[in-house]
Amino acid sequence: MSKDLLSYVGESGVIRLMQRFFPDHAHYVKKGIGDDCAVLETGGKDLLLVTTDMLAEGVHYTTKTTPYEDIGWKALAVNLSDIAAMGGTPHTAFLSIGLKSSTPVSILESFMRGFREMACEAGVFLAGGDTISVTSHSVISVTLLGRCSPEGLVFRSGARVGDDIWVSGFLGNAAGGLEILLRNEHKEEEGRQMLISSHQRPAPRLKLGKALGESGLAHAMIDLSDGVAKDLRHICDESNVGAVLDRGSIPISEPLQALARDLSHDPIDWALNGGEDYELLFTTLPEDRKKIEELTVSVMGRTAARIGFVVKDKGVWLRAGSMRTQLTHRGYTHF
Amino acid sequence: MSKDLLSYVGESGVIRLMQRFFPDHAHYVKKGIGDDCAVLETGGKDLLLVTTDMLAEGVHYTTKTTPYEDIGWKALAVNLSDIAAMGGTPHTAFLSIGLKSSTPVSILESFMRGFREMACEAGVFLAGGDTISVTSHSVISVTLLGRCSPEGLVFRSGARVGDDIWVSGFLGNAAGGLEILLRNEHKEEEGRQMLISSHQRPAPRLKLGKALGESGLAHAMIDLSDGVAKDLRHICDESNVGAVLDRGSIPISEPLQALARDLSHDPIDWALNGGEDYELLFTTLPEDRKKIEELTVSVMGRTAARIGFVVKDKGVWLRAGSMRTQLTHRGYTHF
Repeated sequence: MSKDLLSYVGESGVIRLMQRFFPDHAHYVKKGIGDDCAVLETGGKDLLLVTTDMLAEGVHYTTKTTPYEDIGWKALAVNLSDIAAMGGTPHTAFLSIGLKSSTPVSILESFMRGFREMACEAGVFLAGGDTISVTSHSVISVTLLGRCSPEGLVFRSGARVGDDIWVSGFLGNAAGGLEILLRNEHKEEEGRQMLISSHQRPAPRLKLGKALGESGLAHAMIDLSDGVAKDLRHICDESNVGAVLDRGSIPISEPLQALARDLSHDPIDWALNGGEDYELLFTTLPEDRKKIEELTVSVMGRTAARIGFVVKDKGVWLRAGSMRTQLTHRGYTHF
Repeated sequence: MSKDLLSYVGESGVIRLMQRFFPDHAHYVKKGIGDDCAVLETGGKDLLLVTTDMLAEGVHYTTKTTPYEDIGWKALAVNLSDIAAMGGTPHTAFLSIGLKSSTPVSILESFMRGFREMACEAGVFLAGGDTISVTSHSVISVTLLGRCSPEGLVFRSGARVGDDIWVSGFLGNAAGGLEILLRNEHKEEEGRQMLISSHQRPAPRLKLGKALGESGLAHAMIDLSDGVAKDLRHICDESNVGAVLDRGSIPISEPLQALARDLSHDPIDWALNGGEDYELLFTTLPEDRKKIEELTVSVMGRTAARIGFVVKDKGVWLRAGSMRTQLTHRGYTHF
């Protein structure tokens, strides 16, 4: 692979390159590149959160596996999840969309229906954007604004050695759902439908993110977009720590286990590397364990899953009995 | 043309369709879809301005006519121009970019160099974004935040019957520059180089926009991205008025006139329909004429050009002697 191509430097190299052009700090920017949202002081009591995601047809979505209505839902959901991961409350969206001029109007209507449904559920208003015609693949870019009190904010960088590591729900469901869709093995069966729905209509954990922020219990938080193996590494890198996950504690749903049996696949692979679950991963003091259980039960009706702990040594390990395996991140990476 | 395709409903139809899904007003949104920027109250003394533009390769830019460094400059400049048109001050940019993984690193570096140059000139900080790989044409989406005092804000909707109509500089230069590039008729000649530069490195009128906003003299303002014929219509639609332009007052530069002679083209066509000039168009009371001349001389070193006046009858006319021709907007339109 040629060293002077983006494919060689990879996604993180591309981000570092862009960051290198803006080495200075701006006093009003409490957080720039390197967290789920940028955090700005704009003069009000609350801080302004900003997140933006670009989605391209054939890379992030395809109508082969996701109807346009669900693409609209998801385009906003992935941004809402970033606001949730900071402990914030979303309020205003900007939607830019590039479509071929030969696109049926009904497709844009379906997209907007899904987008609005998610927006209504999250209390978000669409205040602008851009519409352009493109010559081939469609493209969507959503920028989402939110607010957060300075006290309620949770960064990726706060994890401390000894912290518990939690996730807000099952891992790998979205990857299982995608697998079913790609193999065209839908079946009229409740479990499989749930997995498909996890892929097509992820539910951002807004209430939980905010409650965790307000509680002051979470030291670090991130949303799981690329798979826990990759996203936990972001927490570790930013916090200058490492992490050990307990294989037996990774929450894998019954339907995912059933699918894994049917397809002779190890479900832990989907759970660790699958991505697009949009659950929250967060770290807290071990002495706050009971408080976290109570808080998550009160917000979600069930407890979050404690899946590991933070260590001093850099790296992310999976522990099964007395065996520790270092995880190389196989989550989704661009370039 | 089939009625159920985006090409039939057109760009304005697409925007109306999207707007239809969010019919309600949000109390904190002082301006949503339908101006150069969205205007939000976020609790501080100043209002928050937000604008976003999506650019696609082959539609908005091509390396055949614009080097990557200038594409980077321009991607930010077009957003800065939107902030200028509200009377605001830009501060924070978010850059999302989709490139093929086979793209040379040097191309991204060139792009970022131009982007940073424009950012430094405007005092703008890059605080985030997204980087994705795409399978064909590249795509850029910039979201820019700015601030403005409630008193300094200028909307599209404030034009009043009898107002003077002004533009901040020459019209059609960017279109002339593009024409030279497309015909590959560069020539080492100062005038042509100036036209090319108008196309490749437009200079957003930030100081002038802010000064006009603070002066309280401008009733309505817009930046000229799609050509005066189309953009003036936005002012008229939002203000519920019409406009008459004086053909003889349209400021056409010497180099553009020379180019027009060489190519046997009517330069007024470039001036009215060319687009991408990124000059400001604004309306003011006739009794403030002298103040506007003084203000523009003090900010730009030369006076703005008074090109027409606001009338009650809907429509945009071009007047030459006793002849009035209604302008159909031929500026750039998507879909």
